[in-house]
Amino acid sequence: MQLGMIGLGRMGGNIVRRLMRTGHSCVVYDRDAKAVAALVSEGATGAASLEEFVSKLAAPRHAWVMLPAGKITEATVEQLTKLMTSDDVIIDGGNSFWQDDVRRGKALQQRGLHYVDVGTSGGVWGLDRGYCMMIGGEKAVVDRLDPIFASLAPGIGDIPRTPSRDGRDPRVEQGYIHAGPTGAGHFVKMIHNGIEYGLMQAYAEGFDILRNANSEVLPESHRFDLDLADIAEVWRRGSVIPSWLLDLTASALARQPGLEKYSGYVEDSGEGRWTVNAAIDEAVPAEVLTAALFARFRSRQEHTFAEKILSAMREGFGGHKEPEQHPDPARQSGPEIVKPKADLA
Amino acid sequence: MQLGMIGLGRMGGNIVRRLMRTGHSCVVYDRDAKAVAALVSEGATGAASLEEFVSKLAAPRHAWVMLPAGKITEATVEQLTKLMTSDDVIIDGGNSFWQDDVRRGKALQQRGLHYVDVGTSGGVWGLDRGYCMMIGGEKAVVDRLDPIFASLAPGIGDIPRTPSRDGRDPRVEQGYIHAGPTGAGHFVKMIHNGIEYGLMQAYAEGFDILRNANSEVLPESHRFDLDLADIAEVWRRGSVIPSWLLDLTASALARQPGLEKYSGYVEDSGEGRWTVNAAIDEAVPAEVLTAALFARFRSRQEHTFAEKILSAMREGFGGHKEPEQHPDPARQSGPEIVKPKADLA
Amino acid sequence: MQLGMIGLGRMGGNIVRRLMRTGHSCVVYDRDAKAVAALVSEGATGAASLEEFVSKLAAPRHAWVMLPAGKITEATVEQLTKLMTSDDVIIDGGNSFWQDDVRRGKALQQRGLHYVDVGTSGGVWGLDRGYCMMIGGEKAVVDRLDPIFASLAPGIGDIPRTPSRDGRDPRVEQGYIHAGPTGAGHFVKMIHNGIEYGLMQAYAEGFDILRNANSEVLPESHRFDLDLADIAEVWRRGSVIPSWLLDLTASALARQPGLEKYSGYVEDSGEGRWTVNAAIDEAVPAEVLTAALFARFRSRQEHTFAEKILSAMREGFGGHKEPEQHPDPARQSGPEIVKPKADLA
Amino acid sequence: MQLGMIGLGRMGGNIVRRLMRTGHSCVVYDRDAKAVAALVSEGATGAASLEEFVSKLAAPRHAWVMLPAGKITEATVEQLTKLMTSDDVIIDGGNSFWQDDVRRGKALQQRGLHYVDVGTSGGVWGLDRGYCMMIGGEKAVVDRLDPIFASLAPGIGDIPRTPSRDGRDPRVEQGYIHAGPTGAGHFVKMIHNGIEYGLMQAYAEGFDILRNANSEVLPESHRFDLDLADIAEVWRRGSVIPSWLLDLTASALARQPGLEKYSGYVEDSGEGRWTVNAAIDEAVPAEVLTAALFARFRSRQEHTFAEKILSAMREGFGGHKEPEQHPDPARQSGPEIVKPKADLA
Repeated sequence: MQLGMIGLGRMGGNIVRRLMRTGHSCVVYDRDAKAVAALVSEGATGAASLEEFVSKLAAPRHAWVMLPAGKITEATVEQLTKLMTSDDVIIDGGNSFWQDDVRRGKALQQRGLHYVDVGTSGGVWGLDRGYCMMIGGEKAVVDRLDPIFASLAPGIGDIPRTPSRDGRDPRVEQGYIHAGPTGAGHFVKMIHNGIEYGLMQAYAEGFDILRNANSEVLPESHRFDLDLADIAEVWRRGSVIPSWLLDLTASALARQPGLEKYSGYVEDSGEGRWTVNAAIDEAVPAEVLTAALFARFRSRQEHTFAEKILSAMREGFGGHKEPEQHPDPARQSGPEIVKPKADLA
Repeated sequence: MQLGMIGLGRMGGNIVRRLMRTGHSCVVYDRDAKAVAALVSEGATGAASLEEFVSKLAAPRHAWVMLPAGKITEATVEQLTKLMTSDDVIIDGGNSFWQDDVRRGKALQQRGLHYVDVGTSGGVWGLDRGYCMMIGGEKAVVDRLDPIFASLAPGIGDIPRTPSRDGRDPRVEQGYIHAGPTGAGHFVKMIHNGIEYGLMQAYAEGFDILRNANSEVLPESHRFDLDLADIAEVWRRGSVIPSWLLDLTASALARQPGLEKYSGYVEDSGEGRWTVNAAIDEAVPAEVLTAALFARFRSRQEHTFAEKILSAMREGFGGHKEPEQHPDPARQSGPEIVKPKADLA
Repeated sequence: MQLGMIGLGRMGGNIVRRLMRTGHSCVVYDRDAKAVAALVSEGATGAASLEEFVSKLAAPRHAWVMLPAGKITEATVEQLTKLMTSDDVIIDGGNSFWQDDVRRGKALQQRGLHYVDVGTSGGVWGLDRGYCMMIGGEKAVVDRLDPIFASLAPGIGDIPRTPSRDGRDPRVEQGYIHAGPTGAGHFVKMIHNGIEYGLMQAYAEGFDILRNANSEVLPESHRFDLDLADIAEVWRRGSVIPSWLLDLTASALARQPGLEKYSGYVEDSGEGRWTVNAAIDEAVPAEVLTAALFARFRSRQEHTFAEKILSAMREGFGGHKEPEQHPDPARQSGPEIVKPKADLA
Repeated sequence: MQLGMIGLGRMGGNIVRRLMRTGHSCVVYDRDAKAVAALVSEGATGAASLEEFVSKLAAPRHAWVMLPAGKITEATVEQLTKLMTSDDVIIDGGNSFWQDDVRRGKALQQRGLHYVDVGTSGGVWGLDRGYCMMIGGEKAVVDRLDPIFASLAPGIGDIPRTPSRDGRDPRVEQGYIHAGPTGAGHFVKMIHNGIEYGLMQAYAEGFDILRNANSEVLPESHRFDLDLADIAEVWRRGSVIPSWLLDLTASALARQPGLEKYSGYVEDSGEGRWTVNAAIDEAVPAEVLTAALFARFRSRQEHTFAEKILSAMREGFGGHKEPEQHPDPARQSGPEIVKPKADLA
């Protein structure tokens, strides 16, 4: 089957590679001519402009847009809309906001075009591991694109099958799902990322407590000097909490147990925010997903203004002065623990 | 090797079975004579009292206590202490509070006995899957017990090996770890459970938002009727969030997509609480692990007193009356969303 | 000065009364003719339709809309826009979403009209206590309406003056502020309500812990049977946490210490949600304000779907069965606390 | 009445001053002879040692210990216990952990002495404003000390009386409460401080959102440049959220609107931690009080280890690199907001 790909970054390029490996033909375009040339050398058909890109696709065209969510995706979809003709399909495989999908889907439908949103998970591992895809759009169009999705998906592999799934959509076990109408794909991917934030933060807090188990603020008999790399590893086997994220953590800790190469400045891309927005719209309490998001916000600031307000209040009612900045954490504040002598025990 | 087991419930019984499968001999005791008889019929040596249990063990004795954490474990350790002789070992494989281990370890040491705490993970699956064990105690004693641990552990199996682990303790890859001195085993197991709570709550919130994506409080164009069982399944393959907990969720949703058989009353056993206490003692922020714990507390009440305070305040300043209880959630309160007409758009 | 008021509910009616007390003349309209008649009997000029309402106002007209935020406010502003003429002012004194204000303000400006948003705080107490007003709009228009705001505001009263305010806008000390351009009024009011949620929840949690200090789950020597009404009262005097919300709580607890008349079903109106959305848009961590919002969401459900997911997972990995619903809280789950005997102490 | 005071810091010294103003006689002791001399010059009787201190008190003695909670308080109580005789009273007016009170109370009782714990609120303002006192101990002893408490309490002043309090303990309206047996005083004070943390954080987050309302990450039409000092001031009058903490915030913001003099490093003293521990022991969800505590923990670190774990995972699955540290917050990460053109609107 033929697919056009716009955006040949880490994700787009590897999707093209995985498709070509399984016999599909790809037309590729990127602002960066070198990225185009690289894939042409691997067998793709290159295009030097969006116009050329569209002209090289056979109708009905299938153009997969794999660009950063936001203005560039919007502009590209807009341009494509003008160049394409009836029954053509635009696939947004990036991390767009699902409400943008709903809007675009409606606009394209009015022009006789189709819009499919694909939440694509797999990151840098997808080329070999395959991509988990959450798809929104019209049934007939999603069915038409099935050969593409089937090739990109990881397949059943050696992951054990879930019981009680008889009669259910077999594509799901292959690693892709037609989740619903336009927008549903990115909606489900958004929640995937929201959960991802929560899982990551749960592990992160746990390892933080393990690491500080040897803190000098603790009574000596209550301190442990723990090997975090070994603990991450042992939990991979037979515990309740193995996961791919734990595998990655175990790798990172084995390479560098103190993680000194990382500063701890953590970005967020949007899905975590939209997940919380969705929770609020639905009146669903989502403490953990929200706390995970806020931890990232906080990680990007030296101090919040909120913290200055706290200090100002504390000086106001108690005359408390702030200590020098960031003292030895071993001497950080907190209550003194009393060890009663026999007389008062 | 010979091991004595006290407490033949789901965990203790299966540990004995797994040990006997690999050629160890076991002396077993339980208050419930039937539980003893059952294991005797499978090859174990039974005892009708703690005294008989101790007498049937060859010195130096190894007695594994697998009872509910708390008073019964404490009392059993206390009784054993009186019956055992120099160099004998008491292993607490339950979910004891690690500070109780530290205390008991010191008391036993003064009597020439040894105490080993083992955080044992694996639940009902351990018999076949093996047990992930986190062990605290003296090196020589833990080494002496190695044949037991090696048999109980899951082993490497088909779980991919983590790179960069050359030169590290090879037992860890088998699924057990000597984490540190007495208490360290249960400390690490405690954090394991704390993380478990956080992971569970992250998934739970995500699925809750998915389920309510079709709520009537949302604008019609922003609703999705999603298949949660299929979504759980698809995430098992190629996404960022596969895990054993997700496998279990996919199974449960495949069996009964609405989970009607569950009320949503969620207990907690102690480790989640102690994890938060440890975070506080160390001054480590642990928002996610704490929120997960509080969600369980809340699940066990119809209403909190806190909520009544809120209602009282709202009546006080705004004259707000509470509506009838639990109305159709689709009509629950929240802001009305405005759709501007052209005049004001 | 003349003001027209649309919406004669608890807030709108009392605003008219307070204005008439200080010599302003009011034209009033409400769908409910009885509400109009009541205020006419107190000296207002009544109108039976929006058209009549507008016709009875002298140009440039000042029409204050005091209706529930959402569709009814939107429709009323839209209708007024068609009836009014150049330089007339529409004041939205309700709890509109500030982004609706920004949009309406722009639309009205294009028609030569003015839009002023007023976040109005004071609830049922405002008639006598005065209204705290947070105002957004064009400077000239806000200045023109100053006599109205000055009459509605509480004034300095006997609240101590804040030092270091020399040279600052004197209106602020009277209890009203021109916060900025259109939308700024409701934005500031939104944050006021967001903070309100957080403060309420802080007190509520504190009283909940006090109330449960006598729980049978606690060791007997660690239980207290506390008088919550007296504690609320004593904190009003000389402590760090006196506030109007505490005054209201003390009143409610004095009337009925167990608050049995309240179920604990707590609504939210929108500002709390928008506050969290604003925090997310700004990447500001706002844990407390969000937790307060989620506590309200949770209060309106018997059980969340999230909780059922937790129960399903727990059954999956540990075979844990849910206990009967809502047992005696004194027997609710949690770790058993060990009291070591001398032997192991 | 005669009272002995040990510890002449900010709190202890002013308590002595307030007592002497109302005719009580005080014996004072402090390690720092200058502090003793200062109060002697104001009329107190000085002591150069604990022995001298005790000898100068008339039996039955009343010794108020006003020292930092922890080891120094414990040691002082222990020494006093040895020096005092039957029916003497030790009053701990500091911020001791209430379980230490329970223990000490029992130990003193066995020696025929009495122990009274007083949670004392009022900070640097107490000398003039009076102290709010939460008292635990035996009824007869607390009654005996009533003249002391009555003099220290703020009294009714001009704070409006709460309705429906007929027949209730009149001391409460004066600003002191006999909360229950030994420990109850500090328990109630602990919750007071826990609530204090929550209230502070609620305001702090609100002001943080207000301050960032002008952030360049927001669309221009959605930015506001707000005057925080004026907003704090206006909320003091007629809003729902006036409080003493807001008064202090308004003062601080009027003095320095950007709060540049504060770094935002916020200590915690213990009560916030113990409050969360109490909530956990009682299985009471306390999200807001806990989040407020964790915000302080986080304020004292440059980066948490948890954040490094997040960065390591993100590199693991997505190849994400951390940006340079702390860039211009206006350019911090987050989703790009799409403004659709007509074609796709």
